[in-house]
Amino acid sequence: MAKVNFTSHGVQVEAKNGESLLAVIRGAGIFIDAPCNGNGSCGKCKVKIINGQVNCSKSNHISEEELAQGYVLACCSTVNGDVDVEIPSTADDAMHNMKIEDLGGEKEKIIFKEAIEKLKENGIKLGINIKKSFLQIPEPTLDDNISDVDRLIRQVRNTLGCGNVQCGLSVIKNIPHILRKNNFNITITYIEEENNINIINIEGNDTSNKLYGVAIDIGTTSVAACIINLNSGDIIAKASSGNAQIQYGADVINRIIYAGKKDGIKKLNDAIIKYTINPLLAKMYRESSIESHEIASFVVAGNTTMSHLFLGIQPDYIRMEPYIPAFLSSPYIKANELGVDVNPETTIYLAPSVASYVGGDITAGALASGIWNSEENVLFIDLGTNGEIVFGNREFLMSCACSAGPAFEGGEISCGMRASSGAIEKVEIDKNTYEPKIQIIGEEKPIGICGSGIIDLIYQLMVAKIIDRRGKIVKGLNTPRVRFDEHGMGEYILAFKEEYNIEKNITINEVDIDNFIRAKGAVYSGISSMISSVGMDFDCIDRLYIAGGIGNNLDVESSIMIGMLPDIPRDKVKYIGNSSLIGCYLTIMSKEAKDKLEEISSGITYLELSVEPGYMDEFVSACFLPHTDIERFPTVKQLLGE
Amino acid sequence: MAKVNFTSHGVQVEAKNGESLLAVIRGAGIFIDAPCNGNGSCGKCKVKIINGQVNCSKSNHISEEELAQGYVLACCSTVNGDVDVEIPSTADDAMHNMKIEDLGGEKEKIIFKEAIEKLKENGIKLGINIKKSFLQIPEPTLDDNISDVDRLIRQVRNTLGCGNVQCGLSVIKNIPHILRKNNFNITITYIEEENNINIINIEGNDTSNKLYGVAIDIGTTSVAACIINLNSGDIIAKASSGNAQIQYGADVINRIIYAGKKDGIKKLNDAIIKYTINPLLAKMYRESSIESHEIASFVVAGNTTMSHLFLGIQPDYIRMEPYIPAFLSSPYIKANELGVDVNPETTIYLAPSVASYVGGDITAGALASGIWNSEENVLFIDLGTNGEIVFGNREFLMSCACSAGPAFEGGEISCGMRASSGAIEKVEIDKNTYEPKIQIIGEEKPIGICGSGIIDLIYQLMVAKIIDRRGKIVKGLNTPRVRFDEHGMGEYILAFKEEYNIEKNITINEVDIDNFIRAKGAVYSGISSMISSVGMDFDCIDRLYIAGGIGNNLDVESSIMIGMLPDIPRDKVKYIGNSSLIGCYLTIMSKEAKDKLEEISSGITYLELSVEPGYMDEFVSACFLPHTDIERFPTVKQLLGE
Repeated sequence: MAKVNFTSHGVQVEAKNGESLLAVIRGAGIFIDAPCNGNGSCGKCKVKIINGQVNCSKSNHISEEELAQGYVLACCSTVNGDVDVEIPSTADDAMHNMKIEDLGGEKEKIIFKEAIEKLKENGIKLGINIKKSFLQIPEPTLDDNISDVDRLIRQVRNTLGCGNVQCGLSVIKNIPHILRKNNFNITITYIEEENNINIINIEGNDTSNKLYGVAIDIGTTSVAACIINLNSGDIIAKASSGNAQIQYGADVINRIIYAGKKDGIKKLNDAIIKYTINPLLAKMYRESSIESHEIASFVVAGNTTMSHLFLGIQPDYIRMEPYIPAFLSSPYIKANELGVDVNPETTIYLAPSVASYVGGDITAGALASGIWNSEENVLFIDLGTNGEIVFGNREFLMSCACSAGPAFEGGEISCGMRASSGAIEKVEIDKNTYEPKIQIIGEEKPIGICGSGIIDLIYQLMVAKIIDRRGKIVKGLNTPRVRFDEHGMGEYILAFKEEYNIEKNITINEVDIDNFIRAKGAVYSGISSMISSVGMDFDCIDRLYIAGGIGNNLDVESSIMIGMLPDIPRDKVKYIGNSSLIGCYLTIMSKEAKDKLEEISSGITYLELSVEPGYMDEFVSACFLPHTDIERFPTVKQLLGE
Repeated sequence: MAKVNFTSHGVQVEAKNGESLLAVIRGAGIFIDAPCNGNGSCGKCKVKIINGQVNCSKSNHISEEELAQGYVLACCSTVNGDVDVEIPSTADDAMHNMKIEDLGGEKEKIIFKEAIEKLKENGIKLGINIKKSFLQIPEPTLDDNISDVDRLIRQVRNTLGCGNVQCGLSVIKNIPHILRKNNFNITITYIEEENNINIINIEGNDTSNKLYGVAIDIGTTSVAACIINLNSGDIIAKASSGNAQIQYGADVINRIIYAGKKDGIKKLNDAIIKYTINPLLAKMYRESSIESHEIASFVVAGNTTMSHLFLGIQPDYIRMEPYIPAFLSSPYIKANELGVDVNPETTIYLAPSVASYVGGDITAGALASGIWNSEENVLFIDLGTNGEIVFGNREFLMSCACSAGPAFEGGEISCGMRASSGAIEKVEIDKNTYEPKIQIIGEEKPIGICGSGIIDLIYQLMVAKIIDRRGKIVKGLNTPRVRFDEHGMGEYILAFKEEYNIEKNITINEVDIDNFIRAKGAVYSGISSMISSVGMDFDCIDRLYIAGGIGNNLDVESSIMIGMLPDIPRDKVKYIGNSSLIGCYLTIMSKEAKDKLEEISSGITYLELSVEPGYMDEFVSACFLPHTDIERFPTVKQLLGE
């Protein structure tokens, strides 16, 4: 046994010689970012050996200079005797990833209000079956000595005139004391269905004006949540953070692989519930003075894999042909079965998925977009860690998933990050000096680049002719911002560490650009294949909605010019925010919307791109800026003067 | 802080000076029997101080000799500096209490069979809504790629023709792997209700012949359980042990008081589920090769307090006027909410209670006794830790509870114990020599005396004129078996330690006899008050059934002769075994029986003896052998020649 001492964390553990250093770090309960889940490809699990040594294999991610300083990749290193290890920037990155932030501001609130209006315009009424009722119950006497539960039920029947009344165990546990502490004046929270009343909470005195729900969007990279006043529809609190599962892999495939390992599913489930959702809830409770037991409704949307992991269900068969998920529709679950910190009797509802790679986030997004009631043809694109597309109108809906990889949320990009404070979200480059102007979320020091920033950056690099149409950096430019390493790989330095007094330069290199081009190519070819599959072309697109975690300031022009979106009139394109979260919000506010959501999920036709004829050719052609066939992008052709 | 070292257990803990030694022992996780829950009255928490000392108050339970040896009552002692403590016989008693034994033998099996026959004679059909079905499911393909859950549900609909099919979360977690491990040939266990099917288990291959249920009687002192083959009705395994809650008090009142202390309810709940029921289940699983997930049905009966503690619900208000229980009818609960080691989706059904002191064990017993369909008047008495009485016929049923205390199961009797192996269950005393002949359960060395043994013993002491009709030991008898201590308290030695090579004499003293007389007086006066309350007399009793944990070999003659039961013709009286457990068994075997059980519980009129005019006088008169008014017991009068 060797002693492994994490100097940065004041933690010391014993490990076997030969054990993976990454596994030892995780075993010690230390958060380490490893988007590729330890296969050596992402280079993010960099640690510094202070004393002693480890056996490590060579990696392109460690420069000669870093190697000399003692840096190694944890995933490529095995323990070999006692060692002191520092986990420097990674831990900070991780903490930053899990930093909880408020979601948007007034702009975000308006989007929710608009969504409600749109819902009503589309003929869906608000109204839910979760209610509160204040009851003044006669106190027991020797002559009227029925049990507390029977007394409560009798009063409910008398007041609400309903036949079958039930209470869950956790409610019964509270009844005796709450009745007596409040002189038998209490408020019940209940779910009414047909002739049944299910009491899910009991509170002292009249609290009927306090009825709340929680909507959560579980993204592969980011998780966003809000508390909703169910009486008014107001957003009371909002918060978002990274998904703590990210330490087990950046994309769904790596998460599924990790889920298959020993205790993997338990760790992933804990990561999302204990370490992501419950902290988000705790922060919102603190800020809004709402207590967990007041949350009577809970709707969550995520892609199919996230839905599985949220419930602790093995997603193994999602990634093996014929790609079968364990479930699509939400089973009936109470919060206490999952350990979500809301009222234990609250029903947890998951937006239903369509297929293994088109999940509840897309169904919820489709609900919010109104596509299901549109007379025009709408193309709906959700750009999160994956890219999913829905196309259709009130007559038909079809969907597909693009294997875009995690690039849109910063994964597989060396300086990539999700759209949170410190992220460079907008970039302009001077065509003559090659000097950049950047815009940072939260007006902080830059930490990395988020999806919308990368799109801008690649577009600007292309226009400034710093990169060619293959995404390769042009040699011989007279600027200190362009460099080539000993292997000839070029990079562009967007922010020098000296400029901002930060720890390291923020750069984009040819590998990053290549990764991103493949991601945007997957989206473009997905759109193109789907539209051809129904015998249409891009002219048929009346509206194009973009949703998802790519960033609030997605630039439509850039997105088209790099060839991610088809070259259609800009006024047809609109960024509609986190439509998955908004869809959850609508589902919470309206029973009819929930029914509609179920209808949408079962009505969407799923197109499996991998078996679609011509898709691979489309994809290869799209892995170019903007496309091998520039005729498809007349505005780019004009701009570049080609 | 002082160091308290339990030499007998190899455990050392720190304690504050002044802390109760009983609390320290419990805090160290050491089982100690304290039926009175630490008020100094039972004398069972005797421990020996080996080194150091404690502050202790004087107790009648510690003789001068014992005091000199270092014995103290843990509940009357407080820590005063470092000390070494031995917990000698108590720990053995406790282990003996929790020793799991098989229930009865062939005799017991016959009782179950007879109960089924009686049920059928009373017009109740067998048949339950829990079923199994073997399904051969088509395997998924790229063209038929619905989710595993949807595939299963589709097959269930096709096979069983049922509309609404649901699966619980723990079932869904198993579906993907069980389907694939068994080539999609699986057996589901489901509950069918109206047009709904709720799948509660999935197993590989055809297991439709393996369908089991568990019936449990939770007594205050003893817990009895059996596994039932739901297809045949056969008892597959049986087991019983003490209720581990006994360390927190022998009777319901002490348990309720303990439940109100910090973590009290949690400890009592753990004691019954983790430390009593789950070990009983584990033993039965081992012996029958049945696995926990195969248990699809679970019915439990206990008194109202036991029902509360089983669900972890505070029973506080049961003991305060106007004596209100939190609930009477079983809420809908799944096994995983309670941690009972059966299939997690199995519904836990509690036999409904009638009132705070007439519980589900009595309703279940009433079901088993057939009283609800009898043309004759039946008096049903359950003698467990409490005594409950039901009287009536097919036209009416009424019940009451006698505050009998725990004497019938050995509580508050110095050498008392429950009816398990080592218990003296039958006694005869030679009128001339005063020498006893005893019969021991399990043909082991005697450990103590159980209820039926005490009844016999008191009757024999009375007939041999060793005690007078007040229960006082007659002075001047020429026998070494009678002794008086320095306070003048007499005792009769039933078993000398030298006779059986045991650790201490087995005796009964005047305090024990007095406690027992009050217990039997409570039962007699309960019967008498209840029958007068409907304007009847003892001649109206056509049948008298005795049930409960008092022991299989209850002697009817003795029971009448000491004045516990009215002096009626002996052939009207029958011991019917653990009718609570049998009632659970019937409820498991028949949906109609379950409905009948609910009907019985709501149809029984509860008589509160404490407010019944004349009850107290009746009770005082009954605290005599057999009664102050010997005219009520003509056979005793004749025997004693008075």
